[in-house]
Amino acid sequence: MEAPTRQAFAPRIQRRLDALAQISAEPGAITRLYLTPEQARAEALVAGWMQEAGMRVHRDAVGNLIGRVEGREPGGPALVIGSHLDTVRNAGRYDGPLGVVAGIACVAALLREGPPPVAIEVVGFADEEGVRFAATLTGSRAFAGHLDPAALRTLDSAGTTLAAAMREYGLDPKAVPGAARRPDEILGYVELHIEQGPMLEREGLPVGLVTAISGASRLEITLSGEAGHAGTVAMTERRDALAGAAECILAIEARCRGEEHLVGTVGRIQALPGAVNTIPGQAKFSLDLRAPDDAQRHAALADIDGACKRIALRRRLGFGIALLHEAEAVPCDPGMTALVEAAIVAEGHPVLSLPSGAGHDGMAVAAIAPIAMVFVRCRGGVSHNPAEFASLPDIEAGTRVLLGTVRGFLAQRAG
Amino acid sequence: MEAPTRQAFAPRIQRRLDALAQISAEPGAITRLYLTPEQARAEALVAGWMQEAGMRVHRDAVGNLIGRVEGREPGGPALVIGSHLDTVRNAGRYDGPLGVVAGIACVAALLREGPPPVAIEVVGFADEEGVRFAATLTGSRAFAGHLDPAALRTLDSAGTTLAAAMREYGLDPKAVPGAARRPDEILGYVELHIEQGPMLEREGLPVGLVTAISGASRLEITLSGEAGHAGTVAMTERRDALAGAAECILAIEARCRGEEHLVGTVGRIQALPGAVNTIPGQAKFSLDLRAPDDAQRHAALADIDGACKRIALRRRLGFGIALLHEAEAVPCDPGMTALVEAAIVAEGHPVLSLPSGAGHDGMAVAAIAPIAMVFVRCRGGVSHNPAEFASLPDIEAGTRVLLGTVRGFLAQRAG
Repeated sequence: MEAPTRQAFAPRIQRRLDALAQISAEPGAITRLYLTPEQARAEALVAGWMQEAGMRVHRDAVGNLIGRVEGREPGGPALVIGSHLDTVRNAGRYDGPLGVVAGIACVAALLREGPPPVAIEVVGFADEEGVRFAATLTGSRAFAGHLDPAALRTLDSAGTTLAAAMREYGLDPKAVPGAARRPDEILGYVELHIEQGPMLEREGLPVGLVTAISGASRLEITLSGEAGHAGTVAMTERRDALAGAAECILAIEARCRGEEHLVGTVGRIQALPGAVNTIPGQAKFSLDLRAPDDAQRHAALADIDGACKRIALRRRLGFGIALLHEAEAVPCDPGMTALVEAAIVAEGHPVLSLPSGAGHDGMAVAAIAPIAMVFVRCRGGVSHNPAEFASLPDIEAGTRVLLGTVRGFLAQRAG
Repeated sequence: MEAPTRQAFAPRIQRRLDALAQISAEPGAITRLYLTPEQARAEALVAGWMQEAGMRVHRDAVGNLIGRVEGREPGGPALVIGSHLDTVRNAGRYDGPLGVVAGIACVAALLREGPPPVAIEVVGFADEEGVRFAATLTGSRAFAGHLDPAALRTLDSAGTTLAAAMREYGLDPKAVPGAARRPDEILGYVELHIEQGPMLEREGLPVGLVTAISGASRLEITLSGEAGHAGTVAMTERRDALAGAAECILAIEARCRGEEHLVGTVGRIQALPGAVNTIPGQAKFSLDLRAPDDAQRHAALADIDGACKRIALRRRLGFGIALLHEAEAVPCDPGMTALVEAAIVAEGHPVLSLPSGAGHDGMAVAAIAPIAMVFVRCRGGVSHNPAEFASLPDIEAGTRVLLGTVRGFLAQRAG
């Protein structure tokens, strides 16, 4: 047995991430979408690494790649380590693959110590990003048995349904329910992922403990005033919808600033008719509101709704708010999270607990298993971008925490 | 001689405006653009009315329609009454034609009293709105001898140059300089126009006295921050360009609210990248700033520039401001304006002095002659819209003020 050295894992993990980064639909960029030749090539490469680590490999009915080592009881319930192998367009090389490749490294290290007491699976989910079809978490939702059958009718930009694309890829869409795992088959789920945010960097920490995956509300707010000539209507006579929207945007910012882990973003705005010399008669803007606690998010939304309504009333503007999408917060499991925390402490790092504002496969898996997540610092918080970067020491630290978490989990079951 | 009755002018003016409204490129709407068959048909109709009133009619080299009655000295300098015959797309029936048709009515009334001491011309300018080609005031600029020759190279949406369109219409672009009038040919210029704003309606007055045509600055302001994931960047860590823009918009509004006749409008805004789930890394917005006094406008612009820069600095945002267009204010002539004021008083109306926030042909003519303008109330301040409306009593009141102004002018020259 090899004693762990200072960087037992990171150099090899980085080489594997670099190899995966070569598999792309676009030369010079990283783009690996669901049900494309790039997915097949990435799966073949990763399947080889899984086998080399000692795992039996199969692809499930939705296209997830699953490597498994048995525990004492063959076919028994498993601890799952997972993340995704698909990417956004022009992606970085860490978002997703890091968690899969680090999981393989952990299993390889554990198997060198002997067979585990319970089965361990490493899952490379096939579609987390939802770039090709307008449905995210397709792989992990099918794995957790709650993929909406309507998702199969979703179209890509070429007009191909998800079902047709599956057939073309060699999968049978009717078999998708067979990808579902029963809760009694999964003992727990742990995912390592880059933070995709700046908090760890700000605190100077390589790893972080995820407390929950934030719930999100997406809304569109519309203010209606009166269009008019920019030169002829006195300021005091105006019902300027954009000026009202500006006040609402600042009210949203102020409300969210007041509370930790609550974030509100206005990412899109439109003034109508949109002419330089016309007072806007209408303004529309988006609101993306997230919090790790649903009650916190709902309270903030109620306050924002009230504040914007008061602004509209004072400015004699019409007000409309439409909820476009809502996802509940997914808290991480306290027992699983305690194992992550112990592993971080054992590695000598301070523990920074933070929610994940971004969505992850764990959100879907939480329906059938207790989940935990480990974050790895990424430079500048940048993600979904070729500039995405995690350093070798941080990858090493994250993988050691993942391994420590799995060891802790297995120790509880070693009995 | 007919004694003026309560509505000596308005019913006939309205009938003529209705007849002009039938001449349109689009059935069911009013659209009369420069150098189109509709211009030719409108000119033919109005030329007939001019001749019927006793005027000699010609079309100048740029397409303006000019009716003239001689004074004591044939070929001598003239008082000009003018406005425009072209319209925006889907226009109302008052913006432009009212001033021309009312001018013809005044000349007809004056000629019934005998020949005037000096010549009077009524001009129907050919292109004030600048809808077909991206150049406004083409007719009055050529009339005043300061049409930029580059305007002839301007393209319409079909790729036709203004010069080519002139040739197709039967005009010689090389002859355009011949449309220019010398300052010693024009004694003064007076224009009747609907207000296109709500101030007269608010004050309950049929007519208003224009003090100046406001100067305007058009700018584009850009704030640059840092794009980021809407879920992962804490509020306190953000450099949100749109939140900065919102603060700037409110600062602009507050600055302009503080001063009479100063107006500032943000009509267009864009957040980039413009995704619902991304913190805006850049925000751009337009600013249209107008005031009847250039020093007032420049002072406001300096204050707005300073306020926005301070907002950007405090929010750690980059700041850019670009001046896209600037037009100086054109004050109305005090002597000519005193005649308008006297005519308003003689008609028994309170005098409301106000600047014109919109541009008018008088802006161009002011380069060669003292100008004055009379505003007529329009319902709801609505213009450039089929709902544009001026009532018969208000048209009557405006026309009587225009006639009184001309009478006052002629009385000074009657000797």
